[in-house]
Amino acid sequence: MAKELKDLTKRSVDYSRWYNELVVKADLAEQADVRGCMVIKPYGYAIWERLQQGLDERFKRTGVQNVYFPMLIPKSFLSREAEHVEGFAKECAVVTHYRLKGNPDGDGVVVDPEAKLEEELIIRPTSETTIWNTYKKWIHSWRDLPVLCNQWCNVMRWEMRTRLFLRTSEFLWQEGHTAHATREEAEERARQMLGVYADFAEKVMALPVVQGVKSETERFAGALDTYTIEAMMQDGKALQSGTSHFLGQNFGRAFGVQFVDKENKLDYAWATSWGVSTRLMGALIMTHSDDNGLVLPPKIAPIQVVIVPIYKTSDDLSRLDERLGQLAAELEARGVRVKYDNADNKRPGFKFADYELKGVPVRLVMGARDLEEGTIELMRRDTLEKETLKAEGIVDHVVGLLDEIQDNIYRKAKTFLDEHIFPCNDYEEFKTRVKDGGFFLCPWDGTTETEAQIKADTQATIRCVPFGVSQENPGTDMVSGKPAKYRVLIARSY
Amino acid sequence: MAKELKDLTKRSVDYSRWYNELVVKADLAEQADVRGCMVIKPYGYAIWERLQQGLDERFKRTGVQNVYFPMLIPKSFLSREAEHVEGFAKECAVVTHYRLKGNPDGDGVVVDPEAKLEEELIIRPTSETTIWNTYKKWIHSWRDLPVLCNQWCNVMRWEMRTRLFLRTSEFLWQEGHTAHATREEAEERARQMLGVYADFAEKVMALPVVQGVKSETERFAGALDTYTIEAMMQDGKALQSGTSHFLGQNFGRAFGVQFVDKENKLDYAWATSWGVSTRLMGALIMTHSDDNGLVLPPKIAPIQVVIVPIYKTSDDLSRLDERLGQLAAELEARGVRVKYDNADNKRPGFKFADYELKGVPVRLVMGARDLEEGTIELMRRDTLEKETLKAEGIVDHVVGLLDEIQDNIYRKAKTFLDEHIFPCNDYEEFKTRVKDGGFFLCPWDGTTETEAQIKADTQATIRCVPFGVSQENPGTDMVSGKPAKYRVLIARSY
Repeated sequence: MAKELKDLTKRSVDYSRWYNELVVKADLAEQADVRGCMVIKPYGYAIWERLQQGLDERFKRTGVQNVYFPMLIPKSFLSREAEHVEGFAKECAVVTHYRLKGNPDGDGVVVDPEAKLEEELIIRPTSETTIWNTYKKWIHSWRDLPVLCNQWCNVMRWEMRTRLFLRTSEFLWQEGHTAHATREEAEERARQMLGVYADFAEKVMALPVVQGVKSETERFAGALDTYTIEAMMQDGKALQSGTSHFLGQNFGRAFGVQFVDKENKLDYAWATSWGVSTRLMGALIMTHSDDNGLVLPPKIAPIQVVIVPIYKTSDDLSRLDERLGQLAAELEARGVRVKYDNADNKRPGFKFADYELKGVPVRLVMGARDLEEGTIELMRRDTLEKETLKAEGIVDHVVGLLDEIQDNIYRKAKTFLDEHIFPCNDYEEFKTRVKDGGFFLCPWDGTTETEAQIKADTQATIRCVPFGVSQENPGTDMVSGKPAKYRVLIARSY
Repeated sequence: MAKELKDLTKRSVDYSRWYNELVVKADLAEQADVRGCMVIKPYGYAIWERLQQGLDERFKRTGVQNVYFPMLIPKSFLSREAEHVEGFAKECAVVTHYRLKGNPDGDGVVVDPEAKLEEELIIRPTSETTIWNTYKKWIHSWRDLPVLCNQWCNVMRWEMRTRLFLRTSEFLWQEGHTAHATREEAEERARQMLGVYADFAEKVMALPVVQGVKSETERFAGALDTYTIEAMMQDGKALQSGTSHFLGQNFGRAFGVQFVDKENKLDYAWATSWGVSTRLMGALIMTHSDDNGLVLPPKIAPIQVVIVPIYKTSDDLSRLDERLGQLAAELEARGVRVKYDNADNKRPGFKFADYELKGVPVRLVMGARDLEEGTIELMRRDTLEKETLKAEGIVDHVVGLLDEIQDNIYRKAKTFLDEHIFPCNDYEEFKTRVKDGGFFLCPWDGTTETEAQIKADTQATIRCVPFGVSQENPGTDMVSGKPAKYRVLIARSY
């Protein structure tokens, strides 16, 4: 077994270390030379591209168009929306100068003090401010609405403690920003985009999620409502995987975006924003993978099927090349992403371990004897089951199997999620059990005091008021003993 | 005719103003609130996405994989490669702080002086330095080579004079960075990628280009050779549209990227880098468009065919909707990007002018009488020719016509280019004629002195030593009178 694989820490020993090692060993990403930033390596980026492409198609089907706004934001924009600045303006990268010059006292370059900006510029932590300052020029009448824009870009938040994909200072994301003539339409759009996220997570990433609405404390800075999808990692912790915000008229008002409505009256435009980021990579990795490495749902896997020949002589190899090259072509013709790996600088055992580590869903292996006997060995990554099959008909079998693996990976994660949602009305019980992970469905009185108490006692937070859970007679708040307003999901989180 | 269109300055009156107005009126881009930066609007971004997608596919076919490196670069990296710092480290956005705080003396936020970075960070003007500092960790043996990476990202160069798409402080681009075991392989890769650019420009963007190699003065900072594609705008000026650099071992040496070669000896890795940017949008717009607005090659047009119904009664409209909705579906089934525009808040005349301005290659119009008579009106944007055709068979006709338009647009630009390349051996003649535009093929003695003289006298620069032009007996340098080393193309440029 290859060295890299042997070294992977087991989940049961240290889940957190397992994740950190896996990201690096599977060639997904690594720490960059700039503190808190990451290099996304080719294999990791190929997965991200599949996420991007799938989401982008879904956004466009709802009428959204892509745009690009500048990465630098004038400092003064940030303080226009009062709540927004509280949430975002603090830990930012600040550009103060626009020129370097040769060091007069020695080697290298220094900042040219003459080239100081009149107003500092901030690298966008999110783009509501700059986008709404532009929407002012685009929106005058109800006929100009809705505006449905999205951008794929990098953003920067100066995080103190970072982890690859989960929390980095710079990350890649998409941010959708829509403007509407009515409150109803904006609220509907915010929920619609949450639905797009949830559907994509479940159908494509095999990632079951809980949809819901955030408590006031956990809302996006400047939002009236923040909708969220929450996924459960294998340690029972929550990972907020995407959010969609109904922003009311806060940004319309702050940036003076007024329009003439159908009744010929002036009103402020209604806003939403919604985003998912490279954090989704973290969710994908942590939800499905095992002690042997990544497990990728076929719909996301850059390589769905790897084919490896086993040979001793070059004669064997050339016959296998012919047969397996043909097989690869047949699979490709069916839309399968295949890699035929006949590289002779690595032993088969190394290749097996490496593709396992990288989560390739199906591995096909053929040796000289298989060729004579018309057989082929198949291993599926999700269950690690191996079987020897007739080579004839293998294409149909593999195509069907990829669907089966996709379903199986989803079902497994869904079962895990369902089995780790616990109704709980007793605070002592909650405090004991929440350490072991899981989502706790608890009655909450709706006050920030109770919420803060829970966090202080247990580090757990209210993840959301989940959709699809009855809110009738929610019972008694387990902390305050007061009548509850909602049943909420509480968990520790990433 | 719609107001926007009437206002477009004619090319013959002021080519430069025509361009600036067209970019804004056709809804491609606009000035951002941050000096020198742009907002790329949905229609402009849709074109950029088609450029990206087409190039990305071609890169991947040559074995290139996408990655992502951080946008911030430690200041000290820039001075590692001596020539590179001269060319790039000067006009940069410099991040000096990482936090804002509430203004103690009033409203808004101020930079927190406590949050000063130990080492300043630069927003990447290009990423050779940070990428090669990482390649050091990836490359140890010839078996690790070649490394073939590309990233699509934003970069920043603090430009003093900016124009939308042509030169902006922040722009979008791709930058490929490859590492190789031998000089030959790296040189071959640099030329290969130039070929990819040229082929894409000609086949997809209908943009004829001259390929060649830059003079030492015009080389990329840190390169041994810079290959270029030069396009000719309608005013006869050159637009450098893509470059590919053979970097030798300069970055390998500067960042200590050594590998064990097949003979078990240590050597520095050989490098290339290559990029095209949103500048290509400028080339596309300026090459093909006319006094009525954009002219887009069908392969790049976000909308290839627009269909507009003409109706008086809602009865007419519903019959036209049925027939034209079907036509749109048939065209889509053939892979054509169609828009059926039956919006009733705009008059047909406005729609016609607007789609003309936006360069939609084919317009189909049907009225109630056409419906009865089985006819349809077709206008092609490139020639503005209108004809009435039988509606039956229109799908086949349009599919064929799109190819014809693509060819025609290319041929027109190619003829213009060919007719504006002038062999010239006489400096007085050159000085007089170069003002009127065109590429001048002139003998050059290869000295930077002559090159500087030409620039000082005429603002024209040596664009390249063109490929495919005989360099035998290049004659006598027209400035110095010394024996020439090359025949070079000289022109004014953007």
